Amino acid sequence: MTPSRLAINQITTKSWSLEQAIVGYARAGVHGIGVWRDKLQQCGIGRARSLLRDAQAWVPSLCKAGDLAAMRAHGASAALDDCRRACDEAAEIGAPTVVFVCGGIGGASSLADARTQVAELLLQAAEYAAKAGVTLGIEPFHPMHAAERGCINTLRQAHALRQQVGPSAKVVFDVFHCWWDPDVMTYTAAPYTQETATVQLCDWRVPTRHPVTDRAMVGDGVADIAAMVRQFEANGYTGPYEIEIFSEDWWAVDPAQVVATCIDRYRQVTASAALAH
Amino acid sequence: MTPSRLAINQITTKSWSLEQAIVGYARAGVHGIGVWRDKLQQCGIGRARSLLRDAQAWVPSLCKAGDLAAMRAHGASAALDDCRRACDEAAEIGAPTVVFVCGGIGGASSLADARTQVAELLLQAAEYAAKAGVTLGIEPFHPMHAAERGCINTLRQAHALRQQVGPSAKVVFDVFHCWWDPDVMTYTAAPYTQETATVQLCDWRVPTRHPVTDRAMVGDGVADIAAMVRQFEANGYTGPYEIEIFSEDWWAVDPAQVVATCIDRYRQVTASAALAH
Repeated sequence: MTPSRLAINQITTKSWSLEQAIVGYARAGVHGIGVWRDKLQQCGIGRARSLLRDAQAWVPSLCKAGDLAAMRAHGASAALDDCRRACDEAAEIGAPTVVFVCGGIGGASSLADARTQVAELLLQAAEYAAKAGVTLGIEPFHPMHAAERGCINTLRQAHALRQQVGPSAKVVFDVFHCWWDPDVMTYTAAPYTQETATVQLCDWRVPTRHPVTDRAMVGDGVADIAAMVRQFEANGYTGPYEIEIFSEDWWAVDPAQVVATCIDRYRQVTASAALAH
Repeated sequence: MTPSRLAINQITTKSWSLEQAIVGYARAGVHGIGVWRDKLQQCGIGRARSLLRDAQAWVPSLCKAGDLAAMRAHGASAALDDCRRACDEAAEIGAPTVVFVCGGIGGASSLADARTQVAELLLQAAEYAAKAGVTLGIEPFHPMHAAERGCINTLRQAHALRQQVGPSAKVVFDVFHCWWDPDVMTYTAAPYTQETATVQLCDWRVPTRHPVTDRAMVGDGVADIAAMVRQFEANGYTGPYEIEIFSEDWWAVDPAQVVATCIDRYRQVTASAALAH
């Protein structure tokens, strides 16, 4: 768990453009950056590539594709088409993983039906992902988001889906969504460490005042992050740790200070996980 | 699933005293009433017994005991003492089940630690419950409540804990807490139907504007209640259906109208579960 494995997801510094984030993170010594497609589009893919290269930056994940509930409004094949574009974009900026957000119930007849439809979309998208040389990172979402944002809600569900989809799928582990999961120690151990595309870090604030935009900075909440990181490291996880904070509070702070705090907290969690930097 | 199996949990008509609720429900033809301990205390146990008898009412559950996180502030044995009192009170009003609310992290070092402590409390309380002739109904709480209200979050966890505790424990199935659970069809089937103390009905509102007090009336949300009821009924569940709506919206409505709505929605869910009244 070297500092070189630390990435910051750019939503954490929402007010920064992609260019500002690439430059700002690199200035602080962080060369990993989780990229969002809307920011990538604003920047332009060619320009993003050269900015990333100049900053010697790497991209753990491109967010996001999937979201069947939202895409259905745009036609039957909209979600699949969007998945394909996301795979191409990820390949172009060297991101190994497209974060696959499952979406809620939307127009499906029930939660069970929505879950079936997500599996179908993933199976279709997997073929294209394989050709593009990228992985679909299935992200289980906190159960409070089951109806509206993500109908796959546990690590067990996500890994079962990954297995069904095959080698083009992995799982995105996000502390916010998974910290409560009774199987968290199972799915942070072998063989699942190898099937985890990226580990997204934040913390669970008490109280959580908003279901989406009130995540805590790493170390400021009640999630036992050190236990999860320790388990991942002891079981052969060698992938990125990506700090991702959706937070109105942190979005109001100077992004350079947010980046400095992320680095500091990453070091603390590494230390409390009793692991070498 | 006869109307005689319908109960209303008195929190649904929060502005009514226990006396008002017993009389008001019976007037509408509902003789099942889920009782809260604070309301019971205001009424007095002796008086409650005679009111229940006069109204030919039955009590599916007495809410609540447990809540280790909150009780710990009152001393080491406070939670256990409170469990014992709840068992006695339940026995006195003929309620077969004390709803056991697990509580959040509180003073525990982590969520995992809190879960261990809940199991210890349940094992201690079970002996007393057996003597009192009542059951501890372990209620899994929605994962968004893991930190603050209930650290047991899935049906699988709750049934594993029940099995560990023995015959004095059952599980309380609450649609609000469990509707998203990937194992919901498993735990509404045999052999778990016999291990379910009561089924609490409400619905999941989209969006849910408050984690505690924004439940939807049965039929107004996205939970597939008919599927759950159908599964329970097809698998030998013979216990109560208890409508329990924590809702600022419904608390603002005339309680007599709320009761009428509950009855109406119960009939609708029974019909859509394709079962005889």
